Amino acid sequence: MQKIKNILSKIDESSDKNIEILKDFLKIRSISTIPDYAEECNNAAKWLKKLLESFGLSPLIYESEGHPIVYCEYISDKKDAETILFYGHYDVQPVDPIELWNSDPFTPTISKVDGEDCIVARGASDDKGQVLTFVLAIKYLIDEFGELPFSMKLIIEGEEECGSKTLPLFLGEYKERLNADIGYVCDTSMWDKNTPAITRSLRGLLSEEFEIIGPNRDLHSGEFGGVAWNPIRVISNILANVYDESGAVTIEDFYDGVKKVDEDIIEDWNKLNFNEKEYLSKIGQKTSAGELNRLIFEKTWSRPTFEINGIFGGYTDEGTKTVIPSKASAKITCRLVGNQEPEIIIKNIHKFIRNKLPEGMKVNFKGFDYCKAIEFNTDSQYFKAASLAIEEEWGIAPVYTGGGGSIPIVEVFKSELNIDTVLVGFALDDDRIHSPNEKYNISSYTKGIKTWARIIYKFY
Amino acid sequence: MQKIKNILSKIDESSDKNIEILKDFLKIRSISTIPDYAEECNNAAKWLKKLLESFGLSPLIYESEGHPIVYCEYISDKKDAETILFYGHYDVQPVDPIELWNSDPFTPTISKVDGEDCIVARGASDDKGQVLTFVLAIKYLIDEFGELPFSMKLIIEGEEECGSKTLPLFLGEYKERLNADIGYVCDTSMWDKNTPAITRSLRGLLSEEFEIIGPNRDLHSGEFGGVAWNPIRVISNILANVYDESGAVTIEDFYDGVKKVDEDIIEDWNKLNFNEKEYLSKIGQKTSAGELNRLIFEKTWSRPTFEINGIFGGYTDEGTKTVIPSKASAKITCRLVGNQEPEIIIKNIHKFIRNKLPEGMKVNFKGFDYCKAIEFNTDSQYFKAASLAIEEEWGIAPVYTGGGGSIPIVEVFKSELNIDTVLVGFALDDDRIHSPNEKYNISSYTKGIKTWARIIYKFY
Repeated sequence: MQKIKNILSKIDESSDKNIEILKDFLKIRSISTIPDYAEECNNAAKWLKKLLESFGLSPLIYESEGHPIVYCEYISDKKDAETILFYGHYDVQPVDPIELWNSDPFTPTISKVDGEDCIVARGASDDKGQVLTFVLAIKYLIDEFGELPFSMKLIIEGEEECGSKTLPLFLGEYKERLNADIGYVCDTSMWDKNTPAITRSLRGLLSEEFEIIGPNRDLHSGEFGGVAWNPIRVISNILANVYDESGAVTIEDFYDGVKKVDEDIIEDWNKLNFNEKEYLSKIGQKTSAGELNRLIFEKTWSRPTFEINGIFGGYTDEGTKTVIPSKASAKITCRLVGNQEPEIIIKNIHKFIRNKLPEGMKVNFKGFDYCKAIEFNTDSQYFKAASLAIEEEWGIAPVYTGGGGSIPIVEVFKSELNIDTVLVGFALDDDRIHSPNEKYNISSYTKGIKTWARIIYKFY
Repeated sequence: MQKIKNILSKIDESSDKNIEILKDFLKIRSISTIPDYAEECNNAAKWLKKLLESFGLSPLIYESEGHPIVYCEYISDKKDAETILFYGHYDVQPVDPIELWNSDPFTPTISKVDGEDCIVARGASDDKGQVLTFVLAIKYLIDEFGELPFSMKLIIEGEEECGSKTLPLFLGEYKERLNADIGYVCDTSMWDKNTPAITRSLRGLLSEEFEIIGPNRDLHSGEFGGVAWNPIRVISNILANVYDESGAVTIEDFYDGVKKVDEDIIEDWNKLNFNEKEYLSKIGQKTSAGELNRLIFEKTWSRPTFEINGIFGGYTDEGTKTVIPSKASAKITCRLVGNQEPEIIIKNIHKFIRNKLPEGMKVNFKGFDYCKAIEFNTDSQYFKAASLAIEEEWGIAPVYTGGGGSIPIVEVFKSELNIDTVLVGFALDDDRIHSPNEKYNISSYTKGIKTWARIIYKFY
C-alpha cells in the first residue's frame, strides 16, 4: 500500500513537469488527414519513441505507406503474467475553421474554462492528453518497482482520424507477437467532471463522399436557368429525403441489425444524473434532432445515424455569381450499432442516391470505408480491476455508458486478436474534440495518470 | 454608299490589328466581384479611356467607392441630331474552376472551336469583345466622316457582374447630361452563328445569400450524432422544398405578375430553327429541368426561376472529418419576368426559409439585391435602323428573341432616363460565358464591328 501512495504523491509533485511534457507533444502538428502534415506525423512518432526510451523501454517505429506506428513490447519474467495491450493515437483532426480558435491550435495554452484549469490545443483531449495518462503512469510504476507487473504490448498509431490504413498491415505482420488478454484504451469520456465512466459499447462508422454531376460545364443562370438541371438542387433533394418526418433514416433496410435496448441498460441510464435541457443548451439547441420519442442516450449510443459532414458546390467565394454549377458534392458518415452490416448499408445508400437522379445526371462515389459497432461483456477481471481502481481515485464507481463515437481499433482487436477492450477515458463532453478550442482539463490529466497507476498497480 | 463600302473594307483590312486590340483588353484581369482585383478594374478603365482618346474623343473616368466608369460624350453640331446612349461593361466574371481552363484565362489565345476561329479568354464574349464591336465601329465612322451623325453618350462600367453599385450614383449626378433618345447595348447573343437577333425582353434578377446556424459550434458526430441539428440537413431540406414535383417554385405568390406569353410571340418562337434534343445535349443533358410542359423558350425567356448558385458547409477538404458543422450557407438567385415584384418575392423567400427552421435554429440573410424584368416596344425607328443594318451585314433579318439573363442597366435606363434599349449582340450560345474557356468567334467580332458601322451610318 505504501508503494502506491508513494507513486501517487510523486505524480502530484511532478504535475507541472507532466504538463510540460504534454505541451511538447501538442506542439507537433500531426494532422493525419491532410497529406502536407505527413512529416509532422513522423515527428510525433519519433517524439513518443524517445519518451518511452527514457523510461528504459525499447519501442520501435513501424513504417509502411501511411503514418508510422509506435510499438513498445515489454515481456514480464513472472510466470502466468497477464498480457495487456495498450492503444492510443498521436494523430489529430484538422483545425479548420481556424478563425474560431482563441489561440493557435498548436501553441498549447493553459486557461480557465468554466472555472477549471485546462490545456487548450488541437489533440489536447483527443487523444494526446489521454495517451499520456497511461504512458506516464507506466513510467511511474517502472520507477517504483523496476518492472511492470504484466507483459505489455503498447500501440500508438497515427491514422485514427483518417481510417487506420497502416494498422491492419501492422496487425497482420505482428499478429503472433500481439497475443494479449485484454486491451486498455484511453480515448473516451467521463460521465461528468466528477463521475468516471467505462464505455461498454461503441458505434461503428461508415463514410462515403459523392459528387452529383449535372450539366457538362458551369452554365450561366440567365441563359440556362429554367432548363439546366442544377446539381445543388438534386443533391439537396437527395439529402433531404434521407430522413422521414419522424427523423428516421429512409435508406432501405437501414435499421436491420439494430437491437432494442435491454431493460437493464435503460435502468442504468435512468440512474444517471442527466438534465436534457441543460445538455442541449450547451450545444446551443432547444430541441433534440434525430428520431422522435427516443432517449438522448439511446440516440447517441444505441441508434444509428446518417450525418452530412460537408457539402460544397458552385460559387462559394465573396459576392454573387449567376452560375448553375456542373457539380455538387457531399461527405457523409453513418454511425452504426448492433449488427448493422456496413456493406449492405452502403449498397443501399448508393442505390438511394442513384434512384433520385434525374435522367442523364451522374453520380461519382469516392469510395467508402467502415468499422462495425461493438459491445463488451463487462464481467471479466480486467473490467473489475479498472472499475475498482477508478473508484479509489475518484471516490465514486464508474458508470457504464455507451460510446456514440467509433474507435475502429477496438472492433479490430475483437475480430483479429479476439480480445475485449476496457475503454477508460477522462475526456469531458465540453472538451470540444474535433472543434475549435479543444481542451483537456488539468484534473483529467493528473487524475487520469493516477487512475492508470492504480489500475496497473492491481496487477503486481 | 461609297463611304460605307470604304468603311467596311477598312474594317476587313485591319482585322488582325483589331484582334490585337481585343487581346490587349482581355489581358487585363478586371474581375469585379473579387476585391483583390480592384486595381485591374482601374487599369481596364484607363485602357478604354486611352483607346477613346486615340479616336479624338474626350472620355473621362468617373470614380466613387466602387470600380470606375468610363464616360464619353460627343455633342453633334447637327440640328435635331438624335442622341444615342451606348453601354457596355469592362468587368468580367471570376475564372474558377481554374483547372478546367485549357489556357490561361487572361492570356487570350486564338484557336478553332467547332471549326470556327475564336479568341479564348475570360471576357472574350462577356463583354469585352462585344464592347469593342461598337467602340471600334465609332472609330471607323469618325475616321471616314470626321464626325459622328448623332450626339453620343457612351458608358462603359466595371460593375455589371457584381451589381452595379457605382452606376446609380453616376446616373444621379449626370442625369441631365445623359438625356438620350435610345440606348444601344451590345451584351446579348445571336440566334445561331448565321442568324442575328435583337433581344426584346430581359429577365430580372434577385440575389440573396443565407446561412443556417445549428449547434453553437462544430460538433463531433460520434458524440452528438442523432441529437444535434445538422444545418446541412436543414439547408438541404429548405432548398429541396423550393420546388414541387412539377418543377414549379413553391415560394408563396412567386408567380404573381408572371404574364401568359402572347400568341404572336409563341408564333415567332415556333418559326425559329431549334432542335431541343441538340440544345440539351450541348450542355450534357438528356431532359430539360424546370417546369413541366413548357417550351424551352418560355422557360428561359418568359418564366421566372429559383437557382442555387452555391452551397457550402462543414468539412470540404480532403478525406473524412466526422463533424456536425455549426453552419451551412447557400447563394441563390431568381430570374424574374413580367411584373414580378422583387421586394415581395424576397419577403416570401425569407418567410419560407424561416418557416422551415427547426425550433432554436437561426438564419442570417446576407442582404438581397435585384433588378426587375423588362420588355420593349420594337416598332421605333431605332429598332428598325438596327434591324435593317443587321440584315444588310448578315443577309438575313434578325429574329426577335427573349433574353434569359439580366442586364440591370437596361431596366435603369427605362426607369431613370425613360429610354428604351436596342439590344444587339453577337455572342453565341456556346461562348461559355461565366464558364471556363469562354470564347468569342472572330466572325462575331469582325462582323459585329461592321454591323455597328452600318447602324451608325444610317444616322448620317
